[in-house]
Amino acid sequence: MHKINITEKLALFAEHWSPKIVGELNGQHVKLAKLKGEFVWHKHDAEDEMFLVIKGSFRMEYRDKTIVLNEGEFLIVPKGVEHRPVADEEVSIMLFEPASTLNTGDAESELTKHKLDWI
Amino acid sequence: MHKINITEKLALFAEHWSPKIVGELNGQHVKLAKLKGEFVWHKHDAEDEMFLVIKGSFRMEYRDKTIVLNEGEFLIVPKGVEHRPVADEEVSIMLFEPASTLNTGDAESELTKHKLDWI
Repeated sequence: MHKINITEKLALFAEHWSPKIVGELNGQHVKLAKLKGEFVWHKHDAEDEMFLVIKGSFRMEYRDKTIVLNEGEFLIVPKGVEHRPVADEEVSIMLFEPASTLNTGDAESELTKHKLDWI
Repeated sequence: MHKINITEKLALFAEHWSPKIVGELNGQHVKLAKLKGEFVWHKHDAEDEMFLVIKGSFRMEYRDKTIVLNEGEFLIVPKGVEHRPVADEEVSIMLFEPASTLNTGDAESELTKHKLDWI
């Protein structure tokens, strides 16, 4: 029941593509992540996923279109939809998704994080 | 799969204590609300509730303490915990909570909103 300051939490880590958990409610996790470069194409078979830009911008690529997301904008990627986040410059985002969500979904690779840290 | 700009959505309404739905994922709603003044003491028996400050500040009163929340800060109120948001000046917030959540929880009053609009 303490408050979380997003900027302070973001200052605690530098790695890209390594979401950190900052909250949990109703079986969902609130995560912070820094992205830079291209992620892998993937989908989540059972989980919808929300991306909210805290600082910077990035683009979400779908197979048939691309959406540029700027600060203060969010996007919900429905379960089953292939997507790939790409950030030309570093972007800080908040994620809201079920605790069961694996970052790379159905596309396991060296980018897959099986265990996320709380910060 | 379109993006949502929070500032643009906030410009669409002025009422206080009347959350608007702006997204849905995994049975949860993403809502925006403007608060000013004192709400009612209440709790949600089955739902945890997240409050994220977009613009301004407010305080969350619990029975045994008060937490001041500023821009870029969030708080999760666990199910069953009595709380009352109070805003001396208008504050704009984002809420994440199960779609089943009633704004006044167990304390029905003239402030209760049984049906929320999407914007």
